[in-house]
Amino acid sequence: MHAITVTEPGGPEAMSWAKVPDPTPGPGEVIVEVAAAGVNRADLLQRQGLYPPPPGASDIIGLECSGTITNVGAALPLDRIGEKVCAILAGGGYAQKVAVPVGQLMPIPDGVSLIDAGGLAEVTCTVWSNLDMVANLSEGEWLLIHGGGSGVGTMAIQIGRALGARIAVTAGSQAKLDRCAALGAEVLINYHEQDFVQEIKDATGGRGANVILDNMGASYLSRNVDALARDGRLVVIGMQGGVKAELDINALLRKNASVHATSLRGRPESEKAAICAQVERTVWPWIHAGVVTPVIDRVMPMADAAEAHRLLADGAVTGKILLTP
Amino acid sequence: MHAITVTEPGGPEAMSWAKVPDPTPGPGEVIVEVAAAGVNRADLLQRQGLYPPPPGASDIIGLECSGTITNVGAALPLDRIGEKVCAILAGGGYAQKVAVPVGQLMPIPDGVSLIDAGGLAEVTCTVWSNLDMVANLSEGEWLLIHGGGSGVGTMAIQIGRALGARIAVTAGSQAKLDRCAALGAEVLINYHEQDFVQEIKDATGGRGANVILDNMGASYLSRNVDALARDGRLVVIGMQGGVKAELDINALLRKNASVHATSLRGRPESEKAAICAQVERTVWPWIHAGVVTPVIDRVMPMADAAEAHRLLADGAVTGKILLTP
Repeated sequence: MHAITVTEPGGPEAMSWAKVPDPTPGPGEVIVEVAAAGVNRADLLQRQGLYPPPPGASDIIGLECSGTITNVGAALPLDRIGEKVCAILAGGGYAQKVAVPVGQLMPIPDGVSLIDAGGLAEVTCTVWSNLDMVANLSEGEWLLIHGGGSGVGTMAIQIGRALGARIAVTAGSQAKLDRCAALGAEVLINYHEQDFVQEIKDATGGRGANVILDNMGASYLSRNVDALARDGRLVVIGMQGGVKAELDINALLRKNASVHATSLRGRPESEKAAICAQVERTVWPWIHAGVVTPVIDRVMPMADAAEAHRLLADGAVTGKILLTP
Repeated sequence: MHAITVTEPGGPEAMSWAKVPDPTPGPGEVIVEVAAAGVNRADLLQRQGLYPPPPGASDIIGLECSGTITNVGAALPLDRIGEKVCAILAGGGYAQKVAVPVGQLMPIPDGVSLIDAGGLAEVTCTVWSNLDMVANLSEGEWLLIHGGGSGVGTMAIQIGRALGARIAVTAGSQAKLDRCAALGAEVLINYHEQDFVQEIKDATGGRGANVILDNMGASYLSRNVDALARDGRLVVIGMQGGVKAELDINALLRKNASVHATSLRGRPESEKAAICAQVERTVWPWIHAGVVTPVIDRVMPMADAAEAHRLLADGAVTGKILLTP
């Protein structure tokens, strides 16, 4: 088959569409013929050699895909062949075929095309596992989402709303903020022009956000703690602003608050399967009902992965970029 | 009545046993004639002017007591007069009488004397609210308790064991570690001589502690994160080692871990009442059954509060010091 390979870690140009061996299914795995693969920010780090795949995972980039099952591993029923699925992956999505543990497969939700489903698994699993399973976001609470226009951000707005929360977002352009508003965000903060701590406090009668979903890490840590309400939960899922920062424990203690940091990729397969099962049971019905919709920026040929990475790095994307082999 | 007063914040000698006005019960409050008041580390900070009482609270030191109800406020039944109780307080314990919201009263557990119960409310509510309600400590998990010989520490060992956890403690002397072992701690770490990160990793096959109950704050933050297991929860309840420290968010993220910081005193009355109700329902039966026992270092006259504070500051105490008016 063909896949995106990286001979030497580096810039987008380090990636090329090359012939590689077909994957073989291990026990409990299926082979999916990829219809589309989602591009994630972590892919850019992996390309640069900064985010190596976990032990045993494919060294091909790509954390999610959609496609059709073409082969099954030992102990799996043959009648799954032909099934249309989407999946979270430990790696291997930027390819014509990928091996996937069955627990990480989900059906294509009604009303979503096979291609569009290629960008659905990672964002829904990331958002659900953090907002519900980690932060226990509840009806009537305020959720502040940093990077509201991103793939995760546009999904977090919708899932947050479906959970009954009120939504504030930060983004870097008016166009992204407009899109966030259309998805249900009430408080729109341009981080180039506004102080998000002040804005969320103004919007909440001085109380702050009950939950913050953060993609910046170190550079926002202190302001995020300031922006939390009493009993607030800060959930860090990205470190675009660095990895180490001073924590004011007393500020956290006075609020009875907490700081969580999570990644989906590093979880054991059993946890990934549990998350997929919950997402299918909870989020898929919202998609069927039209309450939650995947936000796709564009679909590009997989051979143009370099251009896709440049667009994402430039902040020129709202929602997801998909790559088709 | 008489109470301990602090005319000018300062050392232990700043406290004196002086005549002050009797407290009057607000709506939903009772007056308790104090049998004994527990000494807490936060009392030392309040004496120094570093931990002012919350708005509306008594400015007399003292976060817990036992005693007898002598008077009830509006809308409360008169037949509660004469009831023996223990209580968590926002302040006012170092006195002959104190006003207490009814939700913060608990009965004296079977087998505990009225005096000994004076040191029971704060430690049981602190430990239960953090180990169960915040950290969700579960059967078979490892709990690392810093300051295992303290009032909170000796109670956390016992409640942790009752929850089915395995216990590691740090303390500063062999005598304290021996006492911790007698209460059920399996891993005993002398922090003057041993590295707690290495010791807890050695004891857990390299995995680390599932939950850490920490009284040090800043000075232990980085090592506590190192000592956490995957999905670990660090709960900071004291800041004897300072309030600000660098947090390695990436270390936390790789473990899917969290940092919580809590204080009992700052919680609203409704939460304090909910905690007391849970403690009475869950911990009191353990005390009745002899599974959990209050650990009392000594009982002193309240007029000797200065000496009690010196002993606590010197680390010369295992379990609780009680003051009797």
